[in-house]
Amino acid sequence: MILNLAKKAKKAFPALANLSTQQKNRILYSMSRALIGYQGYILNQNKKDLQKAKRLKLSSAFIDRLTLTKARIKDMSKSQKALIDLSDPVGEVIKQWKTSSGLQISKVRVPIGVIAIIYESRPDVTSDCIGLCLKSGNCVILRGGSEAINSNKAIYQVLSSVLHKFPVPSGVIGLVSTTRRQEVQTLLRLSDYIDLVIPRGGKSLIREVARISRIPVIKHYQGICHVYVHSDADLAMAEKICFNAKVQRPGTCNAMETMLVDKNIAETFLPRVIQRLQASGVEIRACPMTRRILKGIKLTSVSAKDFCTEYLDLILSVKVVKGLNEAIAHIDEYGSDHSDAIVTNNKKASREFLNRVDSACVYHNASTRLTDGYEFGMGAEMGISTDRLHARGPMALEELTIYKYIVKGQGQIRQ
Amino acid sequence: MILNLAKKAKKAFPALANLSTQQKNRILYSMSRALIGYQGYILNQNKKDLQKAKRLKLSSAFIDRLTLTKARIKDMSKSQKALIDLSDPVGEVIKQWKTSSGLQISKVRVPIGVIAIIYESRPDVTSDCIGLCLKSGNCVILRGGSEAINSNKAIYQVLSSVLHKFPVPSGVIGLVSTTRRQEVQTLLRLSDYIDLVIPRGGKSLIREVARISRIPVIKHYQGICHVYVHSDADLAMAEKICFNAKVQRPGTCNAMETMLVDKNIAETFLPRVIQRLQASGVEIRACPMTRRILKGIKLTSVSAKDFCTEYLDLILSVKVVKGLNEAIAHIDEYGSDHSDAIVTNNKKASREFLNRVDSACVYHNASTRLTDGYEFGMGAEMGISTDRLHARGPMALEELTIYKYIVKGQGQIRQ
Repeated sequence: MILNLAKKAKKAFPALANLSTQQKNRILYSMSRALIGYQGYILNQNKKDLQKAKRLKLSSAFIDRLTLTKARIKDMSKSQKALIDLSDPVGEVIKQWKTSSGLQISKVRVPIGVIAIIYESRPDVTSDCIGLCLKSGNCVILRGGSEAINSNKAIYQVLSSVLHKFPVPSGVIGLVSTTRRQEVQTLLRLSDYIDLVIPRGGKSLIREVARISRIPVIKHYQGICHVYVHSDADLAMAEKICFNAKVQRPGTCNAMETMLVDKNIAETFLPRVIQRLQASGVEIRACPMTRRILKGIKLTSVSAKDFCTEYLDLILSVKVVKGLNEAIAHIDEYGSDHSDAIVTNNKKASREFLNRVDSACVYHNASTRLTDGYEFGMGAEMGISTDRLHARGPMALEELTIYKYIVKGQGQIRQ
Repeated sequence: MILNLAKKAKKAFPALANLSTQQKNRILYSMSRALIGYQGYILNQNKKDLQKAKRLKLSSAFIDRLTLTKARIKDMSKSQKALIDLSDPVGEVIKQWKTSSGLQISKVRVPIGVIAIIYESRPDVTSDCIGLCLKSGNCVILRGGSEAINSNKAIYQVLSSVLHKFPVPSGVIGLVSTTRRQEVQTLLRLSDYIDLVIPRGGKSLIREVARISRIPVIKHYQGICHVYVHSDADLAMAEKICFNAKVQRPGTCNAMETMLVDKNIAETFLPRVIQRLQASGVEIRACPMTRRILKGIKLTSVSAKDFCTEYLDLILSVKVVKGLNEAIAHIDEYGSDHSDAIVTNNKKASREFLNRVDSACVYHNASTRLTDGYEFGMGAEMGISTDRLHARGPMALEELTIYKYIVKGQGQIRQ
């Protein structure tokens, strides 16, 4: 079953890889219309999943992620349409040069091939991944959470039903329609047919996929993000950035989990910002120095374990540091190489922070929450890579491609 | 033991990543001199390995690869020096743009981190890998073949002895000095400390490493390379290219293993080229049509298994095809996505071949033997990647890097 899906995708790949941008955009347009046209069907199928989830007494947060509405389907449709306006990475000449022997070499972007995506409860991921893979010329095999199986099947049926009007085999999109765990293990061993696996979901899913897979995996792992308020920071700006990084949407991987405060400004900066964070419901876990400065307020002690924890919640670790070196050393030790920021007006300090902190995204005077394909101007994204191979940070259309060398000669041979 | 090596490398990485180009070049210069200065010691240690290899009656080809001479050590020294002139990829700004919100984003090259290299009998690989990783700012952990252990230890000692004069910890270079297989398995599970594994060697080594590893692997796998002689080819050029691609150095991954000949020129082209190849000792395995055309000559039949075989030897599969589509279909089915060439003066045919054949390197009117870092003008290389992630084709200094985003703001937050 899964083997057939993978074989069909591999076979369908050359046809998809060679589609023109215009043809791909026409498919995306048809897909965005089909989502609206068949929303009744999708919502009906979604209801089956919701009923089961309620019977199983799954959490309300879980049920919220699982729920589709007309508004959410409209967003899915809009996302497909938005891909039309993004430039097609396939065929782009990355570099071109002539060798001393007269070879003309072009490094040209091509799709990666067949991408398997393993994800959890949100059915809109099904639609997003199909759009992103299609525009970047990749075949996709989807394996969503078993709780969303009816919703995912419906979305898959609606989107793949438009393909027969275009010169591509149906194998370019595949959905694993069984919900047995065993099937994922089989999938992750099909390295002859699948070129890349992207797990989207919680830590344990990602760790499990990375452990089992024989296929290359790009991990969108945790974000233990830091904001370091340097002694030369504009404190009003620092407050605004820290508040945004923690409170605006705490459940995301680019939210701040630890605030590092320079000892020279700690007494001035901490009282105000902590009060404001607490007023927004943030639980503060503080180092001894912070607790000494804020002795009027009762604060929990922060532990080394806290510094290693991605809270994804309204909780913040706070630590006073002696200076830039201690801040960088802390980030080196406890960070997850995702997004880290310094707030300062000191050019030397910012330069050193930006060079020495080796995270996917390092910020000067901006919020870590900005690590995002749209905010970066790259458009829709598959997620934020925390790996150090192929792609780091926001993974958008370009990051779903690789390259080949096209070499033109006039009879050159190896001497 | 191995865990310590990996931990030391991870800890040493920031210091190496932040070395200036000038400092790295000084280290390379010292290394190139040390190789010459201590060649007596290296040759003595190499003798131990050679004596053991002879006792074990290993093949003469194996012993040849294992043997170091003054000339080979001079080449190793020259290779280190040659890296000085190559431009340093670290710090290069790949792209830079400003978002509508005023963020200034730079995509900047950084080293990958800690790279483990697992290789077989050639001790000069030890020296080459240390140089390439050092120049690209990566820590390296080496695990060579057990038969070369004394040579590898000697080279490692000589090269790492120069490090104490520079501001980098000795952990930037590590050598696994035991020869137990178990140690490789341990190494391949240390994904917390090692970022990338590159196996260099035969198919079975690469397959085994890819199977066991929990760390991302870039495979330098087999090359089943094709030259397709199109009906509009300049036949003299085609002969020159085919001869070069097969005979110049048949034991390499970019040598031609199958020659595809268009039926329209087969009767003219085949007799001459086959005679010339046979005169150079090439064994021909031919399709029925080829055998019909060359009925005066006794030729072995070619099988589907032959078409899937990387001969690495003076053996050639020959097939007559009906035209471009059959040639491309054959390459799709039997090729290894390494290097494939078309010889033709027909622009439409060459364009179609170059677009549709999705190999790491596709050639028009040039020999597949040119797939090589030096020939491409990229300098020294780690090998030829046959993977579809991170790097394809020659893997030189730039391919040993990844990037990070440096984002400068004026107080921007997520809305």
